[in-house]
Amino acid sequence: MMDPQAMADACAAAMLRDDASTRSLGITIDQIAPGQARASMEVRPHMANGHGMCHGGLLFTLADTAFAFACNSYNQRVVAQHCSITFLRPAKVGMRLEAFAAQRQRTARSGLYDVVVREAGGADIAEFRGHARALGQRFFEEPAP
Amino acid sequence: MMDPQAMADACAAAMLRDDASTRSLGITIDQIAPGQARASMEVRPHMANGHGMCHGGLLFTLADTAFAFACNSYNQRVVAQHCSITFLRPAKVGMRLEAFAAQRQRTARSGLYDVVVREAGGADIAEFRGHARALGQRFFEEPAP
Amino acid sequence: MMDPQAMADACAAAMLRDDASTRSLGITIDQIAPGQARASMEVRPHMANGHGMCHGGLLFTLADTAFAFACNSYNQRVVAQHCSITFLRPAKVGMRLEAFAAQRQRTARSGLYDVVVREAGGADIAEFRGHARALGQRFFEEPAP
Amino acid sequence: MMDPQAMADACAAAMLRDDASTRSLGITIDQIAPGQARASMEVRPHMANGHGMCHGGLLFTLADTAFAFACNSYNQRVVAQHCSITFLRPAKVGMRLEAFAAQRQRTARSGLYDVVVREAGGADIAEFRGHARALGQRFFEEPAP
Repeated sequence: MMDPQAMADACAAAMLRDDASTRSLGITIDQIAPGQARASMEVRPHMANGHGMCHGGLLFTLADTAFAFACNSYNQRVVAQHCSITFLRPAKVGMRLEAFAAQRQRTARSGLYDVVVREAGGADIAEFRGHARALGQRFFEEPAP
Repeated sequence: MMDPQAMADACAAAMLRDDASTRSLGITIDQIAPGQARASMEVRPHMANGHGMCHGGLLFTLADTAFAFACNSYNQRVVAQHCSITFLRPAKVGMRLEAFAAQRQRTARSGLYDVVVREAGGADIAEFRGHARALGQRFFEEPAP
Repeated sequence: MMDPQAMADACAAAMLRDDASTRSLGITIDQIAPGQARASMEVRPHMANGHGMCHGGLLFTLADTAFAFACNSYNQRVVAQHCSITFLRPAKVGMRLEAFAAQRQRTARSGLYDVVVREAGGADIAEFRGHARALGQRFFEEPAP
Repeated sequence: MMDPQAMADACAAAMLRDDASTRSLGITIDQIAPGQARASMEVRPHMANGHGMCHGGLLFTLADTAFAFACNSYNQRVVAQHCSITFLRPAKVGMRLEAFAAQRQRTARSGLYDVVVREAGGADIAEFRGHARALGQRFFEEPAP
């Protein structure tokens, strides 16, 4: 059986290989573990909305990215079905944001993950909850035992 | 009293003036009315995620943008408190997406809006529901009656 | 092929036959159609919570019941996966409440339904959104064409 | 300043005094602490729905009750604004269910709480998340320091 951490690393590598969107937003995957991921992003001027704060959609995108890497860490391709986000505080231009995704529930086909978006070393910015569903596909063949 | 449509137009103009994020994502506001907005976006290659589909965060961002313009159409600055999205079908690179936001409930301080994201002339891609809360500020002084 | 309205009626009858909970709460199913249902309930004194209003859980239960009858109207057993409710106004003891469930999206295996809870002839009390998933079972054999 | 645990106990007592609904459903409040509560309920035959499982609305009601006692533990009357529930497994007649509510976020006016519904000594049945908002009222006068 493959080591769970090695599997999580290999899944993240497979995800990143084809992933243009994360890169183009300046999101980096800083840590990965089975059922967990940490992603980060700096709020740049072009991310500010009409109220002068980071567009809520980009806070969601950061959280959703951490969620995607956390739930795809078991060599089972899963996709998001339903997600919700609660905005706690505005994130200002220049802030460095970190998103911590952690698995809360996991069954054969579905999973529930919580993600906190936080200013690095600071206050919580948003709470995200994601529902994932397995597609019945793998990222790679696992070595025979 | 100011004409509701003129007010909605003026609010949208005020929102857009300072809004770098919408522009940088290639989102346009195509229509505005009291409590309603339509926004659109083309899925470009750099928006694709590791599964080869538009990053869910960017679908959310399109919906959230339509929501923001719809709920900010009454010359009362409101912000998103809590939003949820259900992903129905993947959106592929090259698709033109439209988001239709419509008010469902509105009280003195809070509002509830539904947004459908649809391939232009095609199938529904996502359903979004947004909860807004008024900040107690205006975009501009209204002309005396 | 079976008439859609006859099928919806037959599904509701099958649901009600075994359903003790709806009866014990005084909820009645007043109307049924393919993808739609209307249920009602009176707020009785024993339903009031510590703030002197109808317990939010019972408002949810009324909405969830209308949702269940609406999504189970196609002779496919479906169950609720995820539901959310927004409380708009308190419901007082003595009020007659109606819940209107309507289908918003439906695919082979899943469905999305909106339910409004309203004081009969009065204001909206709550907005509910339910996600359903098919179990792959039927209520009854359909007559051969 | 009043001891936080004594305050939580006094709030729960004030809530229970007027609360007919919790009693009539057979829900008991088993534990209370600042920002936390545990409630329990047995699934009785009259709670079963048309699929032969506990009505999802009553699972919600149990979770919502634990949430209400947790968020009302600071001598500030708060009400639920928006709640969501994810159903993980059916709860059968005869099961004893426990709901554990814990505060996740709290600001001056609003709070976010997570509740797990679990079979006593068994598996998780549902995950609930509740958003609370303060009314600006107290349960009782606090003794002068």
